[in-house]
Amino acid sequence: MSNLVLIRHGQSAWNLENRFTGWWDVDLTDQGVAEAKAAGRLLAERGLDFDICFTSLQSRAIRTLHLALEEMGRLWLPEVKDWRLNERHYGGLTGLNKAETAERHGDEQVRIWRRSFDTPPPPMEAGSDYDLTQDRRYAGIDVPAAESLKDTIARALPFWEQNIAPELRAGRRVLIAAHGNSLRALVKHLSGIPDNEIVGLEIPTGKPLVYALDADLTPTDRYYLADRAA
Amino acid sequence: MSNLVLIRHGQSAWNLENRFTGWWDVDLTDQGVAEAKAAGRLLAERGLDFDICFTSLQSRAIRTLHLALEEMGRLWLPEVKDWRLNERHYGGLTGLNKAETAERHGDEQVRIWRRSFDTPPPPMEAGSDYDLTQDRRYAGIDVPAAESLKDTIARALPFWEQNIAPELRAGRRVLIAAHGNSLRALVKHLSGIPDNEIVGLEIPTGKPLVYALDADLTPTDRYYLADRAA
Repeated sequence: MSNLVLIRHGQSAWNLENRFTGWWDVDLTDQGVAEAKAAGRLLAERGLDFDICFTSLQSRAIRTLHLALEEMGRLWLPEVKDWRLNERHYGGLTGLNKAETAERHGDEQVRIWRRSFDTPPPPMEAGSDYDLTQDRRYAGIDVPAAESLKDTIARALPFWEQNIAPELRAGRRVLIAAHGNSLRALVKHLSGIPDNEIVGLEIPTGKPLVYALDADLTPTDRYYLADRAA
Repeated sequence: MSNLVLIRHGQSAWNLENRFTGWWDVDLTDQGVAEAKAAGRLLAERGLDFDICFTSLQSRAIRTLHLALEEMGRLWLPEVKDWRLNERHYGGLTGLNKAETAERHGDEQVRIWRRSFDTPPPPMEAGSDYDLTQDRRYAGIDVPAAESLKDTIARALPFWEQNIAPELRAGRRVLIAAHGNSLRALVKHLSGIPDNEIVGLEIPTGKPLVYALDADLTPTDRYYLADRAA
């Protein structure tokens, strides 16, 4: 039984502009909207259904969820939004164009920031335009100054264990709409992917990634829905 | 302090076609979408903000909530969906055109069905195209065959007391997107409107109705946001 589906949000404005985004709340492009709707239609066509949904506190993931649910006639499903499914916090790189950053700091440094497992980018400076420490959405949360993938995993997995895994163990089917790195955290955990491999795992936007999990939540199958024949 | 706002969903396809809708899951029209967005913009312009949202299990109310929240930059707010905020169940009248129903049953009978406090419409027949007793959305719920306004109030108020009132008492600001009759239930309760008056109270679509409630949840003010100068 396929009881877990992960969807990375559709294309955002800063995906398109090739800028580091992280926690900044950038909206979907028209293409991102279309990707989210297509994901919902595909899930419905293939007969995948859900009992509960999880997403982050970021609009691009929430809208992806809502657009997909609308296509599925499932807007009424319960949904839980939590910061622990947010994208990796890109710290002082937030808002910067990736090519310009490479020109300034060198390709190798940017590669390390993007692809190291445990090296965070430089911290966000106080007073930055992209500083979210005073955003009411994150009240009561210790907003990070920057996160490595390891840091992202360290906050995403407790949410998985405490909030998502119990739903699956209770037999409920789960849909998660989130971000490249919070989804890497889950895929690494579920599929046992080593640190040096997970950094290079690309999860495409808007493509439902299906898991079949047994009673121990051990995967018995994992595939992109679009890649498998109907 | 204005701590509660009620919004009736924007125009639906069957509002436009003048058909009895009830629990049938009819979507918003383009005008309904525009009304929902305008409500969100007005709330944002006037500086009204929220901590938690409630809506029904019906797409037209959920979409109204989502469209308004998107305009407010508040998609991240927690939302609770519950059938007890659904529209009144119109029973065997569901799907019928109101004018045709009046021709068949007489204006007086239709007036009673629409405007009596405690007379339900005829029950929905088993096997009707509009029968929702097998809809997974309502699993575990005793789907009514028809509801009077009194019946609607009898299921909406326990939800108010158990789920919404505690949030307000804890100082949280609440946004509710729901339906003509589930909102009548709340307005009757809050404003102490008699049975014979509540049936004639029209709550317009997409117009934020603002309550200021004191610590006992007694209203100190109530107004349509659009009617009060900025």
